Amino acid sequence: MGLVVQKYGGSSVADAEGIKRVAKRIVEAKKNGHQVVVVVSAMGDTTDELIDLAEQVSPMPSGREFDMLLTAGERISMALLAMAIKNLGHSAQSFTGSQAGVITDSVHNKARIIDVTPGRIRTALDEGNIAIVAGFQGVSQDKKDITTLGRGGSDTTAVALAAALDAEVCEIYTDVDGVFTADPRVVKKARKIDWIAFEDMLELAASGSKVLLHRCVEYARRYNIPIHVRSSFSGLQGTWVSNEPIQQGDRKVEQAIISGVAHDTSEAKITVVGVPDKPGEAAAIFRAIADAEINIDMVVQNVSAASTGLTDISFTLPKTEGRKAIDALEKAKTAIGFDSLRYDDQIGKISLVGAGMKTNPGVTAGFFEALSDAGVNIELISTSEIRISVVTRADDVPEAVRAVHTAFGLDSDSDEAVVYGGTGR
Amino acid sequence: MGLVVQKYGGSSVADAEGIKRVAKRIVEAKKNGHQVVVVVSAMGDTTDELIDLAEQVSPMPSGREFDMLLTAGERISMALLAMAIKNLGHSAQSFTGSQAGVITDSVHNKARIIDVTPGRIRTALDEGNIAIVAGFQGVSQDKKDITTLGRGGSDTTAVALAAALDAEVCEIYTDVDGVFTADPRVVKKARKIDWIAFEDMLELAASGSKVLLHRCVEYARRYNIPIHVRSSFSGLQGTWVSNEPIQQGDRKVEQAIISGVAHDTSEAKITVVGVPDKPGEAAAIFRAIADAEINIDMVVQNVSAASTGLTDISFTLPKTEGRKAIDALEKAKTAIGFDSLRYDDQIGKISLVGAGMKTNPGVTAGFFEALSDAGVNIELISTSEIRISVVTRADDVPEAVRAVHTAFGLDSDSDEAVVYGGTGR
Repeated sequence: MGLVVQKYGGSSVADAEGIKRVAKRIVEAKKNGHQVVVVVSAMGDTTDELIDLAEQVSPMPSGREFDMLLTAGERISMALLAMAIKNLGHSAQSFTGSQAGVITDSVHNKARIIDVTPGRIRTALDEGNIAIVAGFQGVSQDKKDITTLGRGGSDTTAVALAAALDAEVCEIYTDVDGVFTADPRVVKKARKIDWIAFEDMLELAASGSKVLLHRCVEYARRYNIPIHVRSSFSGLQGTWVSNEPIQQGDRKVEQAIISGVAHDTSEAKITVVGVPDKPGEAAAIFRAIADAEINIDMVVQNVSAASTGLTDISFTLPKTEGRKAIDALEKAKTAIGFDSLRYDDQIGKISLVGAGMKTNPGVTAGFFEALSDAGVNIELISTSEIRISVVTRADDVPEAVRAVHTAFGLDSDSDEAVVYGGTGR
Repeated sequence: MGLVVQKYGGSSVADAEGIKRVAKRIVEAKKNGHQVVVVVSAMGDTTDELIDLAEQVSPMPSGREFDMLLTAGERISMALLAMAIKNLGHSAQSFTGSQAGVITDSVHNKARIIDVTPGRIRTALDEGNIAIVAGFQGVSQDKKDITTLGRGGSDTTAVALAAALDAEVCEIYTDVDGVFTADPRVVKKARKIDWIAFEDMLELAASGSKVLLHRCVEYARRYNIPIHVRSSFSGLQGTWVSNEPIQQGDRKVEQAIISGVAHDTSEAKITVVGVPDKPGEAAAIFRAIADAEINIDMVVQNVSAASTGLTDISFTLPKTEGRKAIDALEKAKTAIGFDSLRYDDQIGKISLVGAGMKTNPGVTAGFFEALSDAGVNIELISTSEIRISVVTRADDVPEAVRAVHTAFGLDSDSDEAVVYGGTGR
């Protein structure tokens, strides 16, 4: 029996009862003979409450102090969790990100892990302890300041520790049963995926699936750490994310042609109208966007009208960046020389992901046919080797997702196969 | 203009408004040309709320984890305070006890500071920052674990930092205007003391005065750091505690014969009845008490009755230790050979403190006369070079304190000279 890293999110440790429930599960793993490292997020709404307080004292809190403030949240949950485990008769020690050796760069609020030196964790484990580590936080290499890793940071902490400690598996406990072939709130017949390859999971995460963040999966792939996403409420097997298919009993789980359908309604579309169709125009537009530090997603340029020599360029980006992008482009209007801008935040993106589509040329056609049969109009298309994405009206998204899910044989046999965890958050 | 250390307690930073008010005061000191180091406690009831949570997950939380938990409180207040200061246009950085170099022993929940290495604070100051330091916490020298300093720990942090940084003064901001000649809730005519010597302040603290704790004053005396106790609500001069009298305008504040009257109703009295009057008996009793790790205060042995050869021994101790002391003595009853125990928690202690009494032989007589005139019966007496304490019935304490206060000319001229701070907590 080797070392496992378990990560519990805020909804799993929302109150004293949750902490005691999680403590029991951790002790279970220890009793099964594992060395156990636990990464824990702040309790329930703690982080939001701290952000509220910060806004009350300062409209623009400094990054360094904001990180110092937010990291109080995990300090509370990890200490309580260690106490609860001790109360069950097992020894546990809690460690801050800094104590656990999570070394980051100095970009406050969204630092990146650059090294993990888990000497104290190793010692605690060797002395028979369960090690509890604060998720989401680290210490900067140059200034020794406290940093936070940004959204989904606790998952990344867990994977990074698993890599540094050469863990057998990184278990991500959450309030759903695993990764599904589509969002179960939209597709009632969505199925839990038993195993998915890193590559496919990366595309799903990039396409709007929220269970695991891109960054965490990328880290796991780089260090080849299998992730097991599962519910902290049920005891069921969840979804394995790894390089190699897993063995379930006698059965080797097969690579599916299609892993799942993801959707995303958090993006907007900007169309730059009347762009002179000559070299350097697109570059000028996206230089203006990049200089404003805005990440864009899909880009499409129409064929130019021969009569005018003008073309349109459309791209998608997070709605939250919309205002900034429009401002940046308006400022560069004369230099670029376009006619006008159109902003549309009523769009949605539907993506079909599967490594199998590389060798199955019919997939793209089948995808478009399914959307057409459902009466869904396609506005933009973008593809990668293992993904096709389209932009549609936001209103069409639920119907489009269901149609594609059914067309590719992803529907489960029962009407409501989804087992939700406790809170159903 | 030199370096000042300011300490703000939990009631001064109870909410966002309090934090903003304190931030203004800190910036004021900075504008006056000082280098400013601020020690801050956890906001209002934060610590109590964290203790509640701990009790919900474990009846006997481990010391290490309990300290990890509690230190989240100062992390929140210090980060918010730094943000509030930045919002006023001044640069500030917050530091945990560990980052500030507060090195302690490993006794969790009541660690003692053994060294302060404030390199990061010094750097922050030299770069023009206001340094905000978490009170009440440190890091253990051997294990590098987070520790807390116990009750009144933030005051000790402030004095220790002031000593390590060679500060001009350590300002302790609180919700009263300073140290008074008696508790203003009991004696309406109590006067604020302008200056008091370390020695007298130590005796007042040991005798029940709650404004400053003994440990903090002791530290300040050892390193000769003047303390200025003052209100964070009013802008008034408070009480200076130092070796040498202060200068106020043209006037040098004189050493008073009597500094003040303290009282304490938190103690109980145990009388061991029928102890054989022979060598080693008292030693056996107090060995039993000491082995149970109970601190006692006053001890009195009656003259033995010639007819029986038996005597009684009485001592006082914190009420909270009463049960434990009785148990320890009962266990040793046969070995010690006494008749019975009497436990009395309806007692109070009144102490008169003043370095001047060394050279004024009439003080003791005056003290007893004042009590006698007030009809107060004395049960035990204990004296030091600069203090006389008596035990009376608890009910007699307020009247006794007022009588002594008046007899020694401590009453202020006006009927209600006391200026209270905002919350009046």
